[in-house]
Amino acid sequence: MRIGVWADKARLMEAAQGKRRCDLSIENIQLVNTITGEIYPAGVDVLDGIIVRVRDKGEDSPESLKIIDGEGRYLLPGLIDTHLHIESTMMIPSQFAQAVAPWGTTTIIADPHEIANIMGIDGVHFMLDDSKDTPVRQFFLAPSCVPASPAVESGGAQFGPNEISRLLDTPRILGLGELMNYRQICNQQPRMMDIIAEGAKRGAFLQGHAPKLVGADLAAYILAGPVSDHECRSTEECLEKVRLGMHVNLKASSLSNHLQASLNGVKNHRWKDNVSLCTDDVHAATIFESGHLNRVIRMAIEYGADPLDAYRFATYNAAREYGFSDLGAIAPGFVADLQLLDNLDGGCPYLVILEGKEVAREGRCLIQPANNERHFVNTIKLPPLSVSDFMLKVPEEDVETFTIHSKELGPFNGGCYEEIPVKDGYLYIEDDPDLAIMHVFNRYGKNNSAAAPIRNFGIIKGAVASTIAHDCHNLMTISRNPEDALIAVKALQQSGGGIAVAADGKLLAHLSLPVAGLMSDAPLGILVEEIRKTEKAVSELCSGSTLLKMATFALSALPGAILTDQGIIIDSAEEFTPLFRKKH
Amino acid sequence: MRIGVWADKARLMEAAQGKRRCDLSIENIQLVNTITGEIYPAGVDVLDGIIVRVRDKGEDSPESLKIIDGEGRYLLPGLIDTHLHIESTMMIPSQFAQAVAPWGTTTIIADPHEIANIMGIDGVHFMLDDSKDTPVRQFFLAPSCVPASPAVESGGAQFGPNEISRLLDTPRILGLGELMNYRQICNQQPRMMDIIAEGAKRGAFLQGHAPKLVGADLAAYILAGPVSDHECRSTEECLEKVRLGMHVNLKASSLSNHLQASLNGVKNHRWKDNVSLCTDDVHAATIFESGHLNRVIRMAIEYGADPLDAYRFATYNAAREYGFSDLGAIAPGFVADLQLLDNLDGGCPYLVILEGKEVAREGRCLIQPANNERHFVNTIKLPPLSVSDFMLKVPEEDVETFTIHSKELGPFNGGCYEEIPVKDGYLYIEDDPDLAIMHVFNRYGKNNSAAAPIRNFGIIKGAVASTIAHDCHNLMTISRNPEDALIAVKALQQSGGGIAVAADGKLLAHLSLPVAGLMSDAPLGILVEEIRKTEKAVSELCSGSTLLKMATFALSALPGAILTDQGIIIDSAEEFTPLFRKKH
Repeated sequence: MRIGVWADKARLMEAAQGKRRCDLSIENIQLVNTITGEIYPAGVDVLDGIIVRVRDKGEDSPESLKIIDGEGRYLLPGLIDTHLHIESTMMIPSQFAQAVAPWGTTTIIADPHEIANIMGIDGVHFMLDDSKDTPVRQFFLAPSCVPASPAVESGGAQFGPNEISRLLDTPRILGLGELMNYRQICNQQPRMMDIIAEGAKRGAFLQGHAPKLVGADLAAYILAGPVSDHECRSTEECLEKVRLGMHVNLKASSLSNHLQASLNGVKNHRWKDNVSLCTDDVHAATIFESGHLNRVIRMAIEYGADPLDAYRFATYNAAREYGFSDLGAIAPGFVADLQLLDNLDGGCPYLVILEGKEVAREGRCLIQPANNERHFVNTIKLPPLSVSDFMLKVPEEDVETFTIHSKELGPFNGGCYEEIPVKDGYLYIEDDPDLAIMHVFNRYGKNNSAAAPIRNFGIIKGAVASTIAHDCHNLMTISRNPEDALIAVKALQQSGGGIAVAADGKLLAHLSLPVAGLMSDAPLGILVEEIRKTEKAVSELCSGSTLLKMATFALSALPGAILTDQGIIIDSAEEFTPLFRKKH
Repeated sequence: MRIGVWADKARLMEAAQGKRRCDLSIENIQLVNTITGEIYPAGVDVLDGIIVRVRDKGEDSPESLKIIDGEGRYLLPGLIDTHLHIESTMMIPSQFAQAVAPWGTTTIIADPHEIANIMGIDGVHFMLDDSKDTPVRQFFLAPSCVPASPAVESGGAQFGPNEISRLLDTPRILGLGELMNYRQICNQQPRMMDIIAEGAKRGAFLQGHAPKLVGADLAAYILAGPVSDHECRSTEECLEKVRLGMHVNLKASSLSNHLQASLNGVKNHRWKDNVSLCTDDVHAATIFESGHLNRVIRMAIEYGADPLDAYRFATYNAAREYGFSDLGAIAPGFVADLQLLDNLDGGCPYLVILEGKEVAREGRCLIQPANNERHFVNTIKLPPLSVSDFMLKVPEEDVETFTIHSKELGPFNGGCYEEIPVKDGYLYIEDDPDLAIMHVFNRYGKNNSAAAPIRNFGIIKGAVASTIAHDCHNLMTISRNPEDALIAVKALQQSGGGIAVAADGKLLAHLSLPVAGLMSDAPLGILVEEIRKTEKAVSELCSGSTLLKMATFALSALPGAILTDQGIIIDSAEEFTPLFRKKH
């Protein structure tokens, strides 16, 4: 697939031959050749956003309209993030582009899977619209598992083969987003196989997601179609996947970091073509303070990757994974997505160029953000709630309650039945400092909710409420105190969503994410300040917990114990684990 | 592009999970992983021609219908030849497959450019038909330059955008064959740009051919569309091309060997993804005695390539060049094209498997050749010829004659005007042992011919005649004696073409190539015997010349001095260099 389809071949050829003036020449640089692995002095000429020449040091520079003196810096292709959810940054696509362009990111492939679970196809179109004409080239994938488990959860939309087909025929949608229902796929569940067939018959990209899947089932999963994985949790898992031909997207998100372990599965291989980098879920504060994909490069280098390898993962290899034949290298015919860097260390580039135009310099975006219309600012539909709705009623005497164990106990949330004291017909947790009550309220007008006790989340008192609750993004609360839970929820209802923290009858912090209850359209600085304040409140109230930790407790695609708006499920089962059972 | 489109996903998945019996398991092997560069013990399971599992050493083997004990040998993917002309092997495709399958070749991409110049689209369809159901997967490219220089030569066909369009829409034709008119392309000649446009609009593969092209013109050539080159003649040329993103097909043909020089341009690079191997023009005797693509691997290793790199060039890299996503590696979902090897040294494999079926063992093909109908056995259309037609008449007195200098003098044939004695109105060469007369007769009924003296070809006496004369494949003779030339030509007229050698009034050798005057349908053993006999006669008569050397003297796409059926051209010019000029 060629990206630079706008270019007129004849003009480019004439420019290469000196018969036509170039738009841009970059002189005095050390070219990092992502094809051969060499670094050498060169000059680069650009017309119509396309590289037309890479000149030897000795050759005279042409009289281009603009000439940039690279002052001896490294010139590299722009970075390509192979998998992320823009929604997780808490920014809308136009603001996201403003935030990541200065870090050298020029192309992303996003799965708009969060907003799709809330707003359906309209949500995906919002992402497409809001990402137009930004300083980052934004591609999307059709969210393949909306919702992950229709039998046991409900969100704002359901995608079957028809919806997927509509999306796949939409420009800038490259294929199927992470096929995370790997168990259903291994079992040839008709819904998932039909969705895959829509992608396969178009020759579209089929993105995988298969944590801890190995052996015969991994082979079956690969045979079903998915070509990539970004969920490796160990060296062995990463090694097996890359050996079997999967594209391995090494990630360092704000939620998890298995980068070192997975990198160890590939970094010493003779050939590493199928290795790229991704961010998956990073929020605005991480981007603001530490960077975007360059942060993953920096971490990979710290974990022992050769810097040239790390940059290749994020450029040439990423482009090849998606079949972009004119991205990821600096050569005639390639799109002029470029960055000038002082060092090959994952730092912030001095200059970032998209399609031959300067978009960021010394950490600042040079492009004004579009002033787009506000969308989806009123997405929380709940019944009237009172304090008792945040308590957990026990139906009869002599029961044990299924308690979810937060993941400090293992790689995924565990759980087991235990006897919890009861007072006035409700679970009584006050004397057990490790316990809290978790609620998931359907926020799409269905009027249902589910609850379970949770052990070890770390919450001391008060409550946290959030409309970020993967993947259906229902309203989730974790509380020691039901009054505080109600305060937090009311704050979210007023703002349109986000994360709220309350204790001792007071609202302590409130991160307002009005767009679909997931994203803000505020300028980055303001958003990051709100995030930091809320993060601080969360970590003070819930020792050891980060802002987005609770967002995964409803993620039905994950192994372990999960709470949806309908009940508890374990290991992505399509049936519920009863909250109560008769005492033995 | 997926090759294994025949496979049913559900069956494969079930086989991977042990729910369905596999056709084949291969045990006790050292798997050479062309993705990672590792070698490790494994077992491989195949169903319906597709690999469904690569098992760890420890895992039990399933009860497959057939089990092969690899006896500890290396298991690798089959070899892929990225560029060749089957016609140059002198075998028809069905016989060619018989000859190369035992050497481990499982896929080829051939440019049927020779027969296209003779028989047009019908010729291409003959190659498509005759290559069906053979032990090698045969793809083709649409010959892009038929003929190379329509203004200055004539063959049996002319391809414009319409003919190219028809071919590109034909199954098993992957793109445009070598775009060797690089000068015309750099100058945006409408005919070539229109032909390229037919390929580009289909996203088809555009194969390049640009010997010695560097700098601004090379950039323009790349911008025009061609993505590969197999014509590197020096280390510097190869380095420049690979740096600029071209796929470099390193070759060792029967005609030329720049493998060492071009390999030196890439072998020490950190990344070598864009390097593959090809044979271009090898004849049957080379294949019979030394091998096919494995011969290039062997030579590359001798020239310092790491054996793992060399095998990767010929498998994984080749597959990626053409966008075959399921060839070139051993992993679930890949087509089961495999070879078992005792050593990684370019030797003959112990066993060759195509789509899960054994096709060759210990150097012998296990598949019976098809008994196809004979085609194109009467393609020489000449006017009646007499002895004087093989002499060179001088039109007036006091002229100098343009004399082609055979390439011992430089990388390509040179030439200059010189004074040559005249006797009875004809050039008189008898007293100058370095001189001979070269003729090219149109053999497609056009009744025209051209001639020039040739210096340094090495011919002592007699004559050589050939219907192999790139690319129009007119009838070419090089003679010291016109009577012998007539004898040789008459032999070719009788057999339907080939190469004939005569001296002292006698036919010394006659390699009969009845199919289009280029190929034999005789069994390999008989053909090779004839080739050897003729080769011996040629080298005895023409010191230092090989069988196919004269075939390039009419190749208008080559730099240097060339003789077509219409006259002399230099450096692919579209105008003739006069044979005679007035003495200064």
